[in-house]
Amino acid sequence: MRAELVIVGSEMLRFGRRDTNADWLIEQLERLGIETSGRTLVRDDPARIAAAVRYAMEQAELIIITGGLGPTEDDRSRDGLAAALGLPLESDSEMLERLRLLLLSRGRPFGDNQAQQALRPRGAAWIDNPVGTAPGMILAHRDRLLAALPGVPEEMKPMFRAGLLPRLENSHGRAFHKRTLKVAGRTEPSVDEQMKDLYATPGVEVTILSGSEGIELHLVAELAESLERLEALMCERLGRDLYSRDDRTLPAVAGELLLELGKSLATAESCTAGMLAAAVTDIPGSSAWFRGGVVVYSDDLKIKLAGVREETLAARGAVSEEVARELAAGVRTCCGADYGIGITGVAGPGGGSEDKPVGLVHIALDDGEDAGHWRILQFGDRHLVRRRSVTAALDRLRRRLLDARDRRGAQ
Amino acid sequence: MRAELVIVGSEMLRFGRRDTNADWLIEQLERLGIETSGRTLVRDDPARIAAAVRYAMEQAELIIITGGLGPTEDDRSRDGLAAALGLPLESDSEMLERLRLLLLSRGRPFGDNQAQQALRPRGAAWIDNPVGTAPGMILAHRDRLLAALPGVPEEMKPMFRAGLLPRLENSHGRAFHKRTLKVAGRTEPSVDEQMKDLYATPGVEVTILSGSEGIELHLVAELAESLERLEALMCERLGRDLYSRDDRTLPAVAGELLLELGKSLATAESCTAGMLAAAVTDIPGSSAWFRGGVVVYSDDLKIKLAGVREETLAARGAVSEEVARELAAGVRTCCGADYGIGITGVAGPGGGSEDKPVGLVHIALDDGEDAGHWRILQFGDRHLVRRRSVTAALDRLRRRLLDARDRRGAQ
Repeated sequence: MRAELVIVGSEMLRFGRRDTNADWLIEQLERLGIETSGRTLVRDDPARIAAAVRYAMEQAELIIITGGLGPTEDDRSRDGLAAALGLPLESDSEMLERLRLLLLSRGRPFGDNQAQQALRPRGAAWIDNPVGTAPGMILAHRDRLLAALPGVPEEMKPMFRAGLLPRLENSHGRAFHKRTLKVAGRTEPSVDEQMKDLYATPGVEVTILSGSEGIELHLVAELAESLERLEALMCERLGRDLYSRDDRTLPAVAGELLLELGKSLATAESCTAGMLAAAVTDIPGSSAWFRGGVVVYSDDLKIKLAGVREETLAARGAVSEEVARELAAGVRTCCGADYGIGITGVAGPGGGSEDKPVGLVHIALDDGEDAGHWRILQFGDRHLVRRRSVTAALDRLRRRLLDARDRRGAQ
Repeated sequence: MRAELVIVGSEMLRFGRRDTNADWLIEQLERLGIETSGRTLVRDDPARIAAAVRYAMEQAELIIITGGLGPTEDDRSRDGLAAALGLPLESDSEMLERLRLLLLSRGRPFGDNQAQQALRPRGAAWIDNPVGTAPGMILAHRDRLLAALPGVPEEMKPMFRAGLLPRLENSHGRAFHKRTLKVAGRTEPSVDEQMKDLYATPGVEVTILSGSEGIELHLVAELAESLERLEALMCERLGRDLYSRDDRTLPAVAGELLLELGKSLATAESCTAGMLAAAVTDIPGSSAWFRGGVVVYSDDLKIKLAGVREETLAARGAVSEEVARELAAGVRTCCGADYGIGITGVAGPGGGSEDKPVGLVHIALDDGEDAGHWRILQFGDRHLVRRRSVTAALDRLRRRLLDARDRRGAQ
């Protein structure tokens, strides 16, 4: 069984209100093994609601509509649903009476707008609303199951659980298994190339995505064994390029390694100017392994705060391997940390030259004995160059820490 | 003209990824007076994409597809679009050659997957991708205009601006007028209370929204005069609480004031640990007014790098007015800046106590003559506490700079 969601509400189209109901419903359905094939947002307009419901009925067997069931003028999902199915809207005298009593008991008026909540397409059954007034409805039509629920999440959720979930559980036993493999230090095409013969693995759906924190492979399967078999294969191929299979972020992974090894970190940032420090301290408990750092945006501060030598700056320029190395070594010493990271680069949009173009970033990592350096050319705008530099620096640190852990294990 | 958005990407249905492209596109279209009648999310499946495009073509005259244009196996929007229109997919030899050269110049391989990016439905024109490889496409078909853009926001946005916007601007005269008034240092209920008698102004729709960068009032009107009249009224009431009426961010506003006054800034951050420095350096050209700073996560670095006195730390604790003041004064001196900001607080989730609960933040601002201090109790999780602290600090700076400008004007 597949599901389509029809989300009704003009406000979500006009001011970018987040439609959290769909996210929640997709998750609930996934647990039942029901895949959501699409979701459509429509305005509070009966003709558009009807068109969206008809489209949804072509895509899936289960159609869930949220929103547009209340007592106001612009609540039009009842009309839209009836029109999509070609069924008349009928008022239910029993529901009308219940609503009248409910509102009376709360000292509220009961007029035509309230009365429209007792309308339903012929053949639909009610889903009680334990919180508000508007009831939901459920209806089997040909080989489709349609349900309409209010848009207020506090009403929608219990109504889904009480009115729809039992029915879906009865017709379904299976749940999906999911895994996200996160990869750093690689491009999307290179991971794609390495994995594409595995995409056709029966029973597992694979999606590849690229973001500023690296590449992600999303795996979904009906059987846990299929998922685990493919996951093991992919992990073996990825080796150290894989940094997480359980939704941890790169700063969290690097932080856990530092904690495990009992080591600490300090940062000296020029072009990223605090972004790396901010990223690692987003992790609760980071004070156990992050000491602090310096933001040395101007050259004189590189000398004063991070111990970069004046001669190096003069001879090599601020964006250079040598300055990155001195930043890393300097901040490590001045902050009393085990590892020091130095970042310097040209974030753009201005400031680039032929041999030092926008996007050029030097990253250095110093642990007192071993100093590594990477020259990276990033694409994208200022914000992206900075974000990707942070990711690159954290990934270098992570790999160095894995080496350190291996050495410790070998001793 | 109405628009429908077709957002392609299984990950947004399955992994709850926020589809930020649609929000952004709706906003851009609104400025042109184009109403978005709906948006549909579909999986990376050519048949589903085709069905969604056909549905969209029934709803609106303009159809924008995002996602599914890249070089990987599951990028299927080209096929879906061609199928929806009943047009053949053709490879463009010129584009093929351009892509080959582009990838060669970056030292990347060029295979079949890359080559699929040169496919387009017959009659479609290219939209150049200034950032990545995948080009977009635009096509007039019967009385519909269809465009396909990549899903990566950093690619999609400039391509919309360069490839689609001019065409839409030409075909439209009647645009809505919009204004966003951004307010700092106030709560949503207080702004709401102050403004609510103005909400019913004829011809202008007003929405109030709350975010981590403050409160926003969104105004939409058909007539420029109606908008301007209401805007003037609101601005008068808001006074200095209003920091932007033209989409500038708080760091940009503070930075422009520093630039205008010829002053510079340095930051000493404990709980925000680089977020303030990262926020101000997100503004291109910030090196003209931002000198740098220190991230003093551990107490000994507060002493060593920012000149906080050991006695102060021992007597008052790291989260205290006195330490914030010494951080601000210390970093101002050590970085040779005109203004120094110090932030110290309890971001949580752990580390709170009865008199220093999670969310308590001390902010100090020092200009050598005048030192201000604010004790703020933030609500929300770790991330939100830190974000709001950055906003609060920038707003204090902005107000101080406005005072300085007034004094200068009076001289």
